[in-house]
Amino acid sequence: MTRLELHPDRLFSAEPAVRDIARRLYGEVSGLPIISPHGHTDPAWFAYDRPFSDPATLLIVPDHYVFRMLYSNGVALEAIGVPRVDGGATMTDPRSIWRLFADHYHLFRGTPSRLWLDWVFSEVFNLDVVLELKTADLYFETIDAALKTDAFRPRALFERFGIEVLATTESPLDPLVHHKAIRESGWGGRVITAYRPDPVVDPDTPGFADNVRHFCESAGRPTLSWDDYLAAHRFHRARFRDAGATSTDHGHPTAATADLHPIEAAALFAHVLEMREPEASELFRAQMLTEMARMSIEDGMVMQLHPAVYRSHNADVLSKFGRDKGADIPLPGEFVRALKPLLERFGNDSRLTLILFTLDEDSYSRELAPLAGHWPALRLGPPWWFHDSPEGMRRFRQRVTETAGFYNTVGFNDDTRAFLSIPARHDVARRMDCDFLARMVVEHRLREDEAHELAHLLTYGLAKEAYKL
Amino acid sequence: MTRLELHPDRLFSAEPAVRDIARRLYGEVSGLPIISPHGHTDPAWFAYDRPFSDPATLLIVPDHYVFRMLYSNGVALEAIGVPRVDGGATMTDPRSIWRLFADHYHLFRGTPSRLWLDWVFSEVFNLDVVLELKTADLYFETIDAALKTDAFRPRALFERFGIEVLATTESPLDPLVHHKAIRESGWGGRVITAYRPDPVVDPDTPGFADNVRHFCESAGRPTLSWDDYLAAHRFHRARFRDAGATSTDHGHPTAATADLHPIEAAALFAHVLEMREPEASELFRAQMLTEMARMSIEDGMVMQLHPAVYRSHNADVLSKFGRDKGADIPLPGEFVRALKPLLERFGNDSRLTLILFTLDEDSYSRELAPLAGHWPALRLGPPWWFHDSPEGMRRFRQRVTETAGFYNTVGFNDDTRAFLSIPARHDVARRMDCDFLARMVVEHRLREDEAHELAHLLTYGLAKEAYKL
Amino acid sequence: MTRLELHPDRLFSAEPAVRDIARRLYGEVSGLPIISPHGHTDPAWFAYDRPFSDPATLLIVPDHYVFRMLYSNGVALEAIGVPRVDGGATMTDPRSIWRLFADHYHLFRGTPSRLWLDWVFSEVFNLDVVLELKTADLYFETIDAALKTDAFRPRALFERFGIEVLATTESPLDPLVHHKAIRESGWGGRVITAYRPDPVVDPDTPGFADNVRHFCESAGRPTLSWDDYLAAHRFHRARFRDAGATSTDHGHPTAATADLHPIEAAALFAHVLEMREPEASELFRAQMLTEMARMSIEDGMVMQLHPAVYRSHNADVLSKFGRDKGADIPLPGEFVRALKPLLERFGNDSRLTLILFTLDEDSYSRELAPLAGHWPALRLGPPWWFHDSPEGMRRFRQRVTETAGFYNTVGFNDDTRAFLSIPARHDVARRMDCDFLARMVVEHRLREDEAHELAHLLTYGLAKEAYKL
Repeated sequence: MTRLELHPDRLFSAEPAVRDIARRLYGEVSGLPIISPHGHTDPAWFAYDRPFSDPATLLIVPDHYVFRMLYSNGVALEAIGVPRVDGGATMTDPRSIWRLFADHYHLFRGTPSRLWLDWVFSEVFNLDVVLELKTADLYFETIDAALKTDAFRPRALFERFGIEVLATTESPLDPLVHHKAIRESGWGGRVITAYRPDPVVDPDTPGFADNVRHFCESAGRPTLSWDDYLAAHRFHRARFRDAGATSTDHGHPTAATADLHPIEAAALFAHVLEMREPEASELFRAQMLTEMARMSIEDGMVMQLHPAVYRSHNADVLSKFGRDKGADIPLPGEFVRALKPLLERFGNDSRLTLILFTLDEDSYSRELAPLAGHWPALRLGPPWWFHDSPEGMRRFRQRVTETAGFYNTVGFNDDTRAFLSIPARHDVARRMDCDFLARMVVEHRLREDEAHELAHLLTYGLAKEAYKL
Repeated sequence: MTRLELHPDRLFSAEPAVRDIARRLYGEVSGLPIISPHGHTDPAWFAYDRPFSDPATLLIVPDHYVFRMLYSNGVALEAIGVPRVDGGATMTDPRSIWRLFADHYHLFRGTPSRLWLDWVFSEVFNLDVVLELKTADLYFETIDAALKTDAFRPRALFERFGIEVLATTESPLDPLVHHKAIRESGWGGRVITAYRPDPVVDPDTPGFADNVRHFCESAGRPTLSWDDYLAAHRFHRARFRDAGATSTDHGHPTAATADLHPIEAAALFAHVLEMREPEASELFRAQMLTEMARMSIEDGMVMQLHPAVYRSHNADVLSKFGRDKGADIPLPGEFVRALKPLLERFGNDSRLTLILFTLDEDSYSRELAPLAGHWPALRLGPPWWFHDSPEGMRRFRQRVTETAGFYNTVGFNDDTRAFLSIPARHDVARRMDCDFLARMVVEHRLREDEAHELAHLLTYGLAKEAYKL
Repeated sequence: MTRLELHPDRLFSAEPAVRDIARRLYGEVSGLPIISPHGHTDPAWFAYDRPFSDPATLLIVPDHYVFRMLYSNGVALEAIGVPRVDGGATMTDPRSIWRLFADHYHLFRGTPSRLWLDWVFSEVFNLDVVLELKTADLYFETIDAALKTDAFRPRALFERFGIEVLATTESPLDPLVHHKAIRESGWGGRVITAYRPDPVVDPDTPGFADNVRHFCESAGRPTLSWDDYLAAHRFHRARFRDAGATSTDHGHPTAATADLHPIEAAALFAHVLEMREPEASELFRAQMLTEMARMSIEDGMVMQLHPAVYRSHNADVLSKFGRDKGADIPLPGEFVRALKPLLERFGNDSRLTLILFTLDEDSYSRELAPLAGHWPALRLGPPWWFHDSPEGMRRFRQRVTETAGFYNTVGFNDDTRAFLSIPARHDVARRMDCDFLARMVVEHRLREDEAHELAHLLTYGLAKEAYKL
């Protein structure tokens, strides 16, 4: 068996002068609390604090980073225990799933999943040999036993991880009962929601008209007029703010925005409720980003835009296993013309904060940094999804900083539903940022005292300030 | 005269810790046999084993990397001996061409051509001074004398280079007589063909209808029906497999694929035989990729797609000197929507291997790695053409690995017609991969035992397995 | 107070072997004269040699890099003293502006502006503490006092900076009186103009028809026929050459070129004089690039193309403060199809030099390097604007060199109106080029003697030769 150890200098540059400074910077920020302003954990975990069931159900079955890699190498999703939409047979024995995973763990070499998982194995479960087929059972039993103890319940881990605040993401159709339960439980952990209105804003969502009807009715605005629809948004945004929300989030196919006359907008709303038409859908989503910006200026909620993903690229996987199964592929992003209508209307207003994310790294230096380096309302989110990785983080800082500086960025987002990996992800970001700053110091582009101040900001201060936490 | 020497640490990082590990990794793979699963050497060389004629005709006149660089700096193609289509006068004295080249050798500083050529000069011809005008004659005479000896005939070099298998690329219209001659010669070298059906698949090829007629007739399927055309493909694919082929190759203007109903496909085929129309051509090529995928599942041949090059950008050079004269310019590539029809049909079938190449490096992290990290049928080819270079290889690994891992890639392709440069190109790839892995080890992202295993795979195992060699 | 010092090794790699060679290379080129073949300084400075007024008016108010960063972080442009188009109130007290700037100087951490400004503070004004709010007055008084002395007048600085030649950029409507005054003053400094005909070539320029009328009349060609319009260009180009110009410059929304029949071109010219229509404007600009290339072959002027910027993205800022206020955002660039008409006509003619710039870094390796590595007329300009930065320069060399080599590039352009920063910008370029070359030496991709020769060329020789200075 091979020893598993997390080297204290991991991810730092090989060059000794850089590494020394990186170590010093990291030493000062590694223990800071975790600010997690955007993610997808399940609030029910923290509401009811039930033990997690078993290693496979916790770590493998729900993690699309993990099962897409096995799938791409010929492993059937059924064998990994991914549930079928039709209730068809899939592997239900967690130990078998775990062994299959262990036997394919080499596929993750060079990927961030490997970094995160090794962190979880070592730091959370104290495992000290590497995962492979012959240690699969040892792993399974160790993790399984730990999960049955109180120290591994969600709230205990939340506290152990040093999380200061954790945002989940909910649809306006969500009654937020779990958040209510958390607040009423007397537990001190700060778990807040975020307003993600896609199901009632994107006419291409299956069941859109029903969603809107339910959305308006639950806000006491049942007429389905444009004004009542907007009022319903105001109602639900206020309801979300009561559950701690400080931000909204928008996952649109493009970054398109529009600024229609209210009469046109009302007619468009009536139209998209009646029929599904690609151009009308796009224009409606575009208009709604501008409406959301207007409401953000009113109520202070920070906007996040996560655009340009081809969702569910694999129709067969979609029909058998549903959405979010690792078949989401980035598309080229266009921001300059797309954002102009919204920016013309609200971009000069410092009360608005619109945080932009992209999966199209080409837009970092060409579009996003110049935009954020001019418009008062814009900030750049951290590297997202596929780019939440050491190389992705390095490219982000290298391409963004010289034009937008550090102060138009917002710190790190883990953006995950894999709760146990949250500290590992923040740790990667802290290490990569410290290494980037250390290199700047060694190249005499920054003084070390500035690097210390910036390391603290990138780890903690910017996220807290940008998300108004 | 300045000494020419190939430093044993060339291309390794300056950083000593990385360099040490890179050396160790390279030490274990530098002597592995060469697997060359895709390239453009001339099978006649190996069939008849005739001596190469002279230094200029071997190394300068046919190498579009070389003459394009001189041309871009104002040297006439005629002066470099590039033959004119109209038989017009060009330089025919090899020594004059060689001197002209030597006098411009500084233009290649910083390019991979310089690395490859210096390797050939030093390792193949044992030259130990650098090439410049004053050593041009020494070079010419040394190389010319060597080429007249048996040790420098094609088969002897093939063996000296340690080539385990070398694939050429032929059109279905090719009778494959040279490959037959190789097999019947009793020589043990493994030189195989690959099926490149562009001339009978791309309606924009000059003479397309005649090509198809000849193609169908030679398969005993002269009716020009869609069914007979497909049967002719099956016939010729089988003929190519008999000549050792394990792969097909497709050089389309875009990555577009289609999945038409057979009745539509048949009508489209009849249409493109009759008239040339850009949209119909594009759709036909798109449909044919899907047909090729279907046949690959039947017969096991691996598909390669090399899309998105603007061929012969210089009409004047095209008319005077013909195709492949260094005037081919990459275009932006789109894969997500383009590949969807084929993938929907066959992408979940692990029996298919479709290897994607691109000259648009932006698509590495945005599209290609996410696609290959999901679809079972997809793999990523190595950096191609302009990107077959140290920096190109580094960018490829940096942008692809974190999302697709190493196991969705296929090792190295030299993709060259410059036979003598083949070992040099593989050497660059081995060095760059070892350096990339070494850095990962020093940054504690990979254990050294894993890096050793991966170095072997990237050099040898992945190519052999992906191409079924 | 914190000490301000410019480290002699700034911007060099942390790795000692690379740094040592970089130092040696830099040592030989750091003192070479500055060739500034493209920029936007004001010729009146050198014509009349009046003292600069005060620190804020010299260094802050006109620098769009500076005020856009403050604006993006919520500082009003009025507070920075940017003049309003309507003459509305803005801050006019230079000391207040300076203090505001000092208080926000941390925003520039990690940006090239910080590098340039620190160089100006330290090298030009001998300041030895860092700029922050508490040193703002010290800075203001030191700089203000210096500016009142003769040693800080424009000509004295020009000489102190070691500028061998400085090109400004003027419209054909400019009478070039300042350049005449410089020539007639007896001062030995070489300040030349460059022909930037956008106001009479781009039909989307406000006042285009009036511009053309004035342009033709001043050339003694008042008929507004196509032939007279072209003759007016020839007239004004000759007038610019008399004022030292060796180049033209073209700032078009795209790189589109066209090659219309003269009858079509004449009709198009008549049309764009009459009405403003996007497609006609684009086609006219495209045609004019080809006309300019034709004239360049006649008169030897080098062409520069700076395409693909969305100018004045912020309509509110445009209406209040005018153009060039930091709201210009790059757009994706397309060169392959766009340049083909011009290249087909003149690209094989070595008498033409067309220098291409881009803000879309993706096109470096995909389009620009392959184009410049083939066409005799093409050369690549240095990293432009947002990419005139350490990381931008590194990416440029890494992505361009392997395909286009060094000899298809043209050295450095500072491209600035910030006169005092010119030596700082050239210093950054020299350091980054030396570091790039040094790394190639340490990686055994280049001999050190070659690196020395190239360092000299990249610093001095290529610019001088490409711009015919």
